Amino acid sequence: MGVEERRRQLIGVALELFSQRSPDQVSIDEIAAAAGISRPLVYHYFPGKLSLYEAALKRASDDLAERFVEPREGPLGERLLRVMHRFFDFVDEHGPGFSALMRGGPAAGSSRANALIDGVRQAAYVQIVGHLEVERPSARLELVIRSWISLAESTALLWLDGRRVPRRELEVQLVHDFGALAAVAAAYDDEMGALVRRLVEDEPADGPFAELAGRLLTLASPPAA
Amino acid sequence: MGVEERRRQLIGVALELFSQRSPDQVSIDEIAAAAGISRPLVYHYFPGKLSLYEAALKRASDDLAERFVEPREGPLGERLLRVMHRFFDFVDEHGPGFSALMRGGPAAGSSRANALIDGVRQAAYVQIVGHLEVERPSARLELVIRSWISLAESTALLWLDGRRVPRRELEVQLVHDFGALAAVAAAYDDEMGALVRRLVEDEPADGPFAELAGRLLTLASPPAA
Repeated sequence: MGVEERRRQLIGVALELFSQRSPDQVSIDEIAAAAGISRPLVYHYFPGKLSLYEAALKRASDDLAERFVEPREGPLGERLLRVMHRFFDFVDEHGPGFSALMRGGPAAGSSRANALIDGVRQAAYVQIVGHLEVERPSARLELVIRSWISLAESTALLWLDGRRVPRRELEVQLVHDFGALAAVAAAYDDEMGALVRRLVEDEPADGPFAELAGRLLTLASPPAA
Repeated sequence: MGVEERRRQLIGVALELFSQRSPDQVSIDEIAAAAGISRPLVYHYFPGKLSLYEAALKRASDDLAERFVEPREGPLGERLLRVMHRFFDFVDEHGPGFSALMRGGPAAGSSRANALIDGVRQAAYVQIVGHLEVERPSARLELVIRSWISLAESTALLWLDGRRVPRRELEVQLVHDFGALAAVAAAYDDEMGALVRRLVEDEPADGPFAELAGRLLTLASPPAA
């Protein structure tokens, strides 16, 4: 195998092991064994476990950022729902590795790891701004989008801890959460208000936002006397 | 000064400096100078910068957890709003230290620092469950509460980065966000539905939840023809 081919193979082996157990519980010996090579040879391709971990993180980050890409067609709620489905696929596939990373895992404090995580968050932000067709997001809209991204992360992390709520529910719930957080912020910002109206108006009667609007109406109505 | 008194003084001096600049930019020399003692004497009380940082973090964590305590009287929305106000006071007072910590600062990967952060989150969770008067929270309610706590953290972090949105708005917005996230989750859970009704019913006509319900109704209604 050539150098690049071997590096790719080791990254793939490491990611596979990190999807089963927390990276700090996976040794270079295991990675070497799974790749069918000697431990010193692993060090020939990666100077230490951190550099292999960071390379694996780079591949996983690129993979996740690609899953955010969605054609700009059809109702916004359905586009976001498809992205949420692919996001939970990723979280599901990388469970222990994702948890360890987000809880401050083996690369905690590594500026390269932090830059990769920030890069994925920024990719999500850019995609959402693009789908909303907003040229220059206001400070409030930026806050809604970025805080919703962090809500999606923490929801996925909490889901991984026991998987006590079906992921399909959480995928729809996060789409609803986006609409709800935008609706709340609309109190302070006409641009946000116009945006939420557009979200709701574009939505088919059976789409996720329409369903949410109906539910909120019911909850906001006083109970029948 | 006695040992404990000197340790308390050094923790206070460190917290004061960490509230002005990121902890990794504050040297032991500066802490010693601000406390009016020699550098070796600082090391006499704290074996290294990490141990002083962790002691400062312990005091800040206790301080924050105390601010979550709120009498169980009056409408829930107003109680939560008072807590949000004290939370933003804390974030405001500890700006650079809070940002550095939550972004994976000097103690990144320190199990003691992680345990302190988790302890504060757990204190917030226990307080909210107590105020909701729920004996055994369902998995969905637990997810709503814990993900909202993470939303409050990320909203505060984003606010610190430029302070482009008035904090008073964000305090009210986070109270509304709690109601909105609970309303969204109510789709899947009768217990959640009953809880949201209780939140809304307890609320005075001019309270934050009533205002939110009115706004969501407007947004959910089709625009006037």
